[in-house]
Amino acid sequence: MMKRIGIMTSGGDAPGMNAAVRAVSRKALTEGLEVFGINYGFAGLVAGDIFQIDAAAVNDVIKRGGTMLYSARYPEFEKEEVQLKGIAQLNKFGIDALVVIGGDGSYHGALKLTQHGYNAIGLPGTIDNDIPYTDFTIGFDTAVNTALDAIDKLTDTAASHERTFVVEVMGRNCGDIAMWSAVAGGAADVIIPEHDYDIEKVAAKLKSARQRGQKHAIIVLAEGVMHADEFADKLSKYGDFQLRATTLGHVQRGGNPTAKDRVLASQMGAYAVELLMQGKGGLAVGIQNNKLVSHAMTDLFNSKHESHLELHQLVEDLAY
Amino acid sequence: MMKRIGIMTSGGDAPGMNAAVRAVSRKALTEGLEVFGINYGFAGLVAGDIFQIDAAAVNDVIKRGGTMLYSARYPEFEKEEVQLKGIAQLNKFGIDALVVIGGDGSYHGALKLTQHGYNAIGLPGTIDNDIPYTDFTIGFDTAVNTALDAIDKLTDTAASHERTFVVEVMGRNCGDIAMWSAVAGGAADVIIPEHDYDIEKVAAKLKSARQRGQKHAIIVLAEGVMHADEFADKLSKYGDFQLRATTLGHVQRGGNPTAKDRVLASQMGAYAVELLMQGKGGLAVGIQNNKLVSHAMTDLFNSKHESHLELHQLVEDLAY
Amino acid sequence: MMKRIGIMTSGGDAPGMNAAVRAVSRKALTEGLEVFGINYGFAGLVAGDIFQIDAAAVNDVIKRGGTMLYSARYPEFEKEEVQLKGIAQLNKFGIDALVVIGGDGSYHGALKLTQHGYNAIGLPGTIDNDIPYTDFTIGFDTAVNTALDAIDKLTDTAASHERTFVVEVMGRNCGDIAMWSAVAGGAADVIIPEHDYDIEKVAAKLKSARQRGQKHAIIVLAEGVMHADEFADKLSKYGDFQLRATTLGHVQRGGNPTAKDRVLASQMGAYAVELLMQGKGGLAVGIQNNKLVSHAMTDLFNSKHESHLELHQLVEDLAY
Amino acid sequence: MMKRIGIMTSGGDAPGMNAAVRAVSRKALTEGLEVFGINYGFAGLVAGDIFQIDAAAVNDVIKRGGTMLYSARYPEFEKEEVQLKGIAQLNKFGIDALVVIGGDGSYHGALKLTQHGYNAIGLPGTIDNDIPYTDFTIGFDTAVNTALDAIDKLTDTAASHERTFVVEVMGRNCGDIAMWSAVAGGAADVIIPEHDYDIEKVAAKLKSARQRGQKHAIIVLAEGVMHADEFADKLSKYGDFQLRATTLGHVQRGGNPTAKDRVLASQMGAYAVELLMQGKGGLAVGIQNNKLVSHAMTDLFNSKHESHLELHQLVEDLAY
Repeated sequence: MMKRIGIMTSGGDAPGMNAAVRAVSRKALTEGLEVFGINYGFAGLVAGDIFQIDAAAVNDVIKRGGTMLYSARYPEFEKEEVQLKGIAQLNKFGIDALVVIGGDGSYHGALKLTQHGYNAIGLPGTIDNDIPYTDFTIGFDTAVNTALDAIDKLTDTAASHERTFVVEVMGRNCGDIAMWSAVAGGAADVIIPEHDYDIEKVAAKLKSARQRGQKHAIIVLAEGVMHADEFADKLSKYGDFQLRATTLGHVQRGGNPTAKDRVLASQMGAYAVELLMQGKGGLAVGIQNNKLVSHAMTDLFNSKHESHLELHQLVEDLAY
Repeated sequence: MMKRIGIMTSGGDAPGMNAAVRAVSRKALTEGLEVFGINYGFAGLVAGDIFQIDAAAVNDVIKRGGTMLYSARYPEFEKEEVQLKGIAQLNKFGIDALVVIGGDGSYHGALKLTQHGYNAIGLPGTIDNDIPYTDFTIGFDTAVNTALDAIDKLTDTAASHERTFVVEVMGRNCGDIAMWSAVAGGAADVIIPEHDYDIEKVAAKLKSARQRGQKHAIIVLAEGVMHADEFADKLSKYGDFQLRATTLGHVQRGGNPTAKDRVLASQMGAYAVELLMQGKGGLAVGIQNNKLVSHAMTDLFNSKHESHLELHQLVEDLAY
Repeated sequence: MMKRIGIMTSGGDAPGMNAAVRAVSRKALTEGLEVFGINYGFAGLVAGDIFQIDAAAVNDVIKRGGTMLYSARYPEFEKEEVQLKGIAQLNKFGIDALVVIGGDGSYHGALKLTQHGYNAIGLPGTIDNDIPYTDFTIGFDTAVNTALDAIDKLTDTAASHERTFVVEVMGRNCGDIAMWSAVAGGAADVIIPEHDYDIEKVAAKLKSARQRGQKHAIIVLAEGVMHADEFADKLSKYGDFQLRATTLGHVQRGGNPTAKDRVLASQMGAYAVELLMQGKGGLAVGIQNNKLVSHAMTDLFNSKHESHLELHQLVEDLAY
Repeated sequence: MMKRIGIMTSGGDAPGMNAAVRAVSRKALTEGLEVFGINYGFAGLVAGDIFQIDAAAVNDVIKRGGTMLYSARYPEFEKEEVQLKGIAQLNKFGIDALVVIGGDGSYHGALKLTQHGYNAIGLPGTIDNDIPYTDFTIGFDTAVNTALDAIDKLTDTAASHERTFVVEVMGRNCGDIAMWSAVAGGAADVIIPEHDYDIEKVAAKLKSARQRGQKHAIIVLAEGVMHADEFADKLSKYGDFQLRATTLGHVQRGGNPTAKDRVLASQMGAYAVELLMQGKGGLAVGIQNNKLVSHAMTDLFNSKHESHLELHQLVEDLAY
């Protein structure tokens, strides 16, 4: 009979992680469970950096970026001896099961805990939207809106000076942030790892747009392809587009979460507690076609997130 | 063979309408069509307030709230003689088919045009999310984030003074803005037209939350239920919650659209042109489970939007 | 020799109060002093709700709205017997001097403490900008930007539907929020307590603007004049301006402070500590012509803030 | 007798330029003058890219970033033969006098026009705040708030991972953006061109802060000193601060202007028209101690903007 659950955030931080921590905590308290926060992810688990969370402890955190539980990389957790130290801490604090919020990598640790007999449920907390079996991750919508806000600002300058900006956005090997912000930003083109591109055609499109009176442009570039400077260099060989390159950088990881990210985090957090109450573990929560789903973590390790490639074509269609 | 399409916005304005206008225009231009903008909705159609749109005309409008085509109420269009005047204008400008962006009401006019032989496709442009056969309308996500921004600000004051705010949000008879902003805003309760409420229980929940150390609270109230002042009055009879009532008002209809609204508007706009190119009319575009769909407008008139009632329970579960 | 200072916030909360709390704390720590936070203003002082603040305690609060020290109204502090209870608490905690952040009203309490031998310095923390001997108060710039953000959103809708919005903003009897947001929002008119208005002339201006092709308008109304509904009612008798009235309400008191408010709060907070270190008390800090100044609180009680009336004429000049 | 004035924007764009264009236009129209917009700065003047502005033409532009009149670099205007071509265009359009909004560089062209008998007034439109005889330039407040927004987001990540971010901000050789955003962002240090720094001391401060429990930090670096990567490299030799470097880039030049920038631009724009009506030219408008002032452009060329160095010390005092 589960009485106490632990919660941690792991990997890179993402807006909405606090909303998920709040949701797990409040749902568990509503169900009569006790809740313990584990600081610094798996590192803090092993170190016993663990504290009890009551209802007021998560007041108003829903609106804050970052993670109140801190996060850290901790590759050492791959070793069984280290895992056992983590298990010892769970025993010490009487924690029966866990929710781990983080990227793909965090799920490996969560699966190990499950295999040791401590059910763990994973929530997809990353801006990169690169986790299989979920249409959206917690933090993605905020990162897209942050990138978009930057693109809007750059568009002001691009229009005033009739320039072309190459804007490098995050997403590691996933082009979703790039495609969403390109459609939303009215970009002339989007370059992503999942799709070939032909730099001559990019240049040709810019030229014909200029002839139609569209004298400024935004090109969104996913970081997984190359750096903005490099791309601008290559492109500049095919014409004078008044190019400027800019890399949005770490700002995309922070900021108050959007409504969508908070709602998603809240739904997923509550659902994770329900799964734990059903005695389940080793599952990763996702949302597919607006429905909350869960899949075995082992299935995720052999899968790949399906990028929203229909948006690639849409950028093309609307760039006229 | 369709050569020229018209586009108009009708009913209350919503953020993302310009993104839809741009998407329809650009997609049509990409497909070799000519595009005409019709100002002031059906009133402008009848008056012949119509102008050609080229690619540059919709440059950078994607980021702007409101509608560059203006909007107006025009109940006169119910009369056939008035419709025929509109048809005459379509003939004059050589317009073969139309896209109408607006709320439920606008679809009646669009259907009339289709019945007269001029295919018209409707796009759901309204913040209220009250249109059947679509999970989301264009403008909803922006309105939710605007309401949320206000709730976040009110939470600062609520926390500083240990007050309870009753926040009235828009949505007409639909509780979706209320439920989304309540979940995202960490509200203690949400009151919507689609669900009963018991004011004594609302008060009881506030009291027990105060005993648990949660001394400030937000209650989100959908405008379709009653006014914030009235609700606060009623609630004040059951205890001293340091109540303040606030009505967010028209700000919810404006503002630069969010990424999600711009992407949705872009997708729907392009899809509407595709439907017209297939010779279809009298259809309303929607998005269901992340897929673009279309339904006969006549089906919509007898249907009701399915509110996101699962979020009502979620507010309850996380209000502990 | 001063060793320990106390800090409190009093009256209505204002964005930037936390920045001031941080500045007072950090500056005092830098100078080798100890710092104590007093919760709930003078009520908390009397109740002894007092805790020590170290450097990390004010980490990152600079960006948050509201006040981490809470605030409360406490008219009881006018009585000497109540003041003496407060003094007893100061003695108990060994607090030698205080900084009080709040509106005009808070200064009365601060002066009493000074008269009892405990130097107190007042910082002007209020959105209303209604404090004498200071050009700007902490929170004013944020409130103006919040009002402006709303006006921008309303302008989208006003333009789309060719409406006139009457927007009621805060400021009590001071028209500064109204005038600043009116200039910045491109308003057609601004109605404030410090200046007569003639509703017929307001109507005449709207009419001539409509004839010049400016078919939508914003009128900013200071709450100290009357309510938006009432004003719209009166105005509607002089023509059909498609009027809508909206009251921005409490959102103007919250939100993350702007850069200007944070800088002002930081400057004033550090300056207050310097004054205390010079053995001064009973002074109110202000900023005049970009210089930090201090004046005897007794002088303030007989004075009136000078509103920025030059902006009233500017609205007029630019409304053409 | 002046009848027609021209207006142009020149140099890098800055938020608030449109507000200034509107203010000049509306004030001039109010005074019975005619107004002509000159596109692309001095290049457009020479090319005759000039159009009449009526009241409605500047409707709602007050809220938009960039410049509706476009801008361009045009060093050719230094040659007298080119200037004479500009003069010929002024004659052709009957323009008697001009307002030029731009940076220091633009004033040289404006002075030439004045010397040719066409009075020109300069407005300081640049985010860099590097213009003599003015406390603030149009665009500075917006740029600071944009930088601050980024710093706030980075602080979320810095806190979650206990990192130190080196944030490079714009300002050319002026440290004002850096100092304002450092104070407002709660930075541990600020590095500017106008002040020496000792990297060992920077490291020592970070170390002692970490010992006091402040485990994350922001260091704001003005672009005029060096690049963020380079600074982080140097700093990393003195300890492990979990350093990350980020360059905010061009986003600082765009975005909707803040209230302060819109008010400043409106005041300056109206004042420029007044100066022209008094028959004055060759003057640069500024604001000093909240008062609008004007100085001979020739005086500016030999002067240097006084940076807000008092904020450098303030960062130090509050970094404890």
